[in-house]
Amino acid sequence: MGGDRAPRVVVEGAYVALQRNPLLHFKFFGDQDLIHPLLDRYSSLHRCSSIYHTTQVIANDTRPTAAIRYRKESSMGLAIEEVAKGKAQAVLSAGNTGAYMALSKLIFQCLEGIDRPALPAMIPTINGQALMLDSGANVECSAQNLIQFALMGKSLAQALLKIQNPKVGLLNVGAEEIKGRQNLQEAFYQLQQISDLNFYGFVEGDDIVLGTTDVVITDGFTGNVGLKAIEGTAKLIKHFLSDALNSSWKGKLGYLIAKPVFKSLRNRIDPRLYNGAVFLGLKHIAIKSHGGTDAIGFAQAIKVATDMVHYRICENIERGLLLCL
Amino acid sequence: MGGDRAPRVVVEGAYVALQRNPLLHFKFFGDQDLIHPLLDRYSSLHRCSSIYHTTQVIANDTRPTAAIRYRKESSMGLAIEEVAKGKAQAVLSAGNTGAYMALSKLIFQCLEGIDRPALPAMIPTINGQALMLDSGANVECSAQNLIQFALMGKSLAQALLKIQNPKVGLLNVGAEEIKGRQNLQEAFYQLQQISDLNFYGFVEGDDIVLGTTDVVITDGFTGNVGLKAIEGTAKLIKHFLSDALNSSWKGKLGYLIAKPVFKSLRNRIDPRLYNGAVFLGLKHIAIKSHGGTDAIGFAQAIKVATDMVHYRICENIERGLLLCL
Repeated sequence: MGGDRAPRVVVEGAYVALQRNPLLHFKFFGDQDLIHPLLDRYSSLHRCSSIYHTTQVIANDTRPTAAIRYRKESSMGLAIEEVAKGKAQAVLSAGNTGAYMALSKLIFQCLEGIDRPALPAMIPTINGQALMLDSGANVECSAQNLIQFALMGKSLAQALLKIQNPKVGLLNVGAEEIKGRQNLQEAFYQLQQISDLNFYGFVEGDDIVLGTTDVVITDGFTGNVGLKAIEGTAKLIKHFLSDALNSSWKGKLGYLIAKPVFKSLRNRIDPRLYNGAVFLGLKHIAIKSHGGTDAIGFAQAIKVATDMVHYRICENIERGLLLCL
Repeated sequence: MGGDRAPRVVVEGAYVALQRNPLLHFKFFGDQDLIHPLLDRYSSLHRCSSIYHTTQVIANDTRPTAAIRYRKESSMGLAIEEVAKGKAQAVLSAGNTGAYMALSKLIFQCLEGIDRPALPAMIPTINGQALMLDSGANVECSAQNLIQFALMGKSLAQALLKIQNPKVGLLNVGAEEIKGRQNLQEAFYQLQQISDLNFYGFVEGDDIVLGTTDVVITDGFTGNVGLKAIEGTAKLIKHFLSDALNSSWKGKLGYLIAKPVFKSLRNRIDPRLYNGAVFLGLKHIAIKSHGGTDAIGFAQAIKVATDMVHYRICENIERGLLLCL
C-alpha cells in the first residue's frame, strides 16, 4: 500500500518482474478490494500470488514510534512478520521509510555485532557503479556505526557489484587526515587497523560519482543530502541540455541525428535502474523502493530482493563481521 | 602564494580583472623574486600594483592553529592585516581555507551578533543561481549558527543575486517538520518567528540545484559534501555525454552540428564562473578563491571582491541583523 501510486505500481511491478523471473511468488498485504481488480488483469501473476487483506495502512507522515503500535494490523507490519515467521524470503515496500525501518528493526532484529541497520544507495559512476551507505536511515552516527557500515558495505559490494575486494572510502570534507568531525577521525583510525578490509581512506563529495572507491561510507544525513544533490544535478543538466538543444536549429538538427545516443545516455542514468535498497544489518531481508517509482523501478527493487536472497546477504554479512572484527 | 599554480595564476587573474575594471589596484603579498618577473609581462598591471615581499608561506597542510603563529610574517597574514589597517578594501587568497578562515577571523573579528563566519557557494540552478552556506568553514553548527547564516545569506543574496526578498530554505533529509537533527528543528522553529525573513522551510538535497529557494542554509560539512557532489555529477554527466557522442557516427555528426549549443551549455556550468566566496560575518572583506582555478576563475573571484566592496556587505549584514533580531 506504500508509494505514490500504490497498489497499482506495486502490482504492475510484480508483473514486470515475473516476466523476467518466472520462479517468483508474491504475497500482497493490503486492501483486497484495491488489489484484487489489479491482479485480475494479469493471469500469470494471479496464479503465483496471494492477497493478505488489511485496511490498516501506515501513512507517509506517521512517526516511526507510532508505526510500531500498528505492527500487528498494518499491511507493512504484517508483511514484515511474514518474513520473520519464515513464510516469505524477503519483504518489499515503497512506503514511509522511517516507519518501515523501525518496524523491520523491531521485528527482524539486528545481526550480532550491528547496532543500527543502514540504507545503501547504488550510484552510477565513471567506472560503473558504487554503493553509498547510509543514505538516510540514521541521521547521526558514531564511529562504531560507520565501521559497521563499512564492513556491511563490503559484503554488499561483493554481492551486487561482484567485486571480490571492494575499495571502501570514508566521506569527509577533505582527503587530509586532520580534517572532519571527531567520529570520522576515530572511524578512520579504526578502519585502517582492519587487515581484511581494503580501506582507501577519506574521500570527498565528488569522489562518490567519480568512482574513486566502490563503497562510500557516511552518516544518513550527509548521505541523503549527497544522493539527492546528485539526482538533482542530473535533472538540472538534463534540463540545461534540452533547453540548449531546443534553442536553435543547429541544436534541434544535431539532436535529431544523435537521438539514439541521447536515449542510451538517458538509460544509463535512469533512476529506476538504481531503485531498491536493502536494510543492511538485519536478520532478514527488507527492501525499500522509492515511493515515486513506476512499474519498471518496482521490478528493479524486486530484482534486488531476489539478488539478496540468492547471495544470502545476511549470512555473508555475519561471516564478514566475524572475519574482520 | 596560495593555490595550485601560484603566484602565476594570481597575477594572470589580476591582469584579466584589470582589463574588465581599470579602476583596480593590487597589492601582492609573497616572494618578490617570483612575482616580479610575472608582473613584468603586463605593464598595465605593473603600473597599478605593488609587491610586499615575504618568503613565509602558509602550506596547504598547515593546521589553522599553527597558521595563527605566522600571522605577522606570512603572505596570507600580512595581506589580511593590510585590510584590517584600512590600507586595502578586500583581501583575496586561493590558499589553505582553514588557515585563511582562522587568520581572517582573528584579525578582522566577527560582526556584532555573529559567532562564526560562513563560506557561501554560488550554485547554478534551473531558474538562475542560488547561494548555499556554509559550504565548508564550520563542520559542526548550532541552531544559532544556522540562524545567523540565514540572515547573512539574505544580505548576500540581495547583493549578488539582486533579489530584494530572497527565499531562504533550511537543508534537511525531508521536507516534513518532524525530520532531521535537533539543531535543525530548533533553527526551523526560530526562523519561522523572524517576520523580516522570507523563510521557506526545509528543503532537500535536490532543491539546491532545482532552485526551490534562493538561499540554502546548512552546516559546513553537509554543504561541502553537497557542493562537491554537484560538481562531481556535472563532471560525470559531461563524461557520459562525450562518451556517448563519440561512440557512433550519428553521435559524432550530431555533436558537430550542435557544437555551438554544447559550448554554450559548457559555459553555463563553467565552475570558473562560480569562483570566489566571501567569508561572511567578518568586519572586513576576505574572499576565498578555489585553489585549482585558472586566471579566468581568479578574475571572477576579484569581481566578487569588488562587488562586496561596492555593496558594503559588512554594513548591510549588520543592518540586516539589527532589523531581524
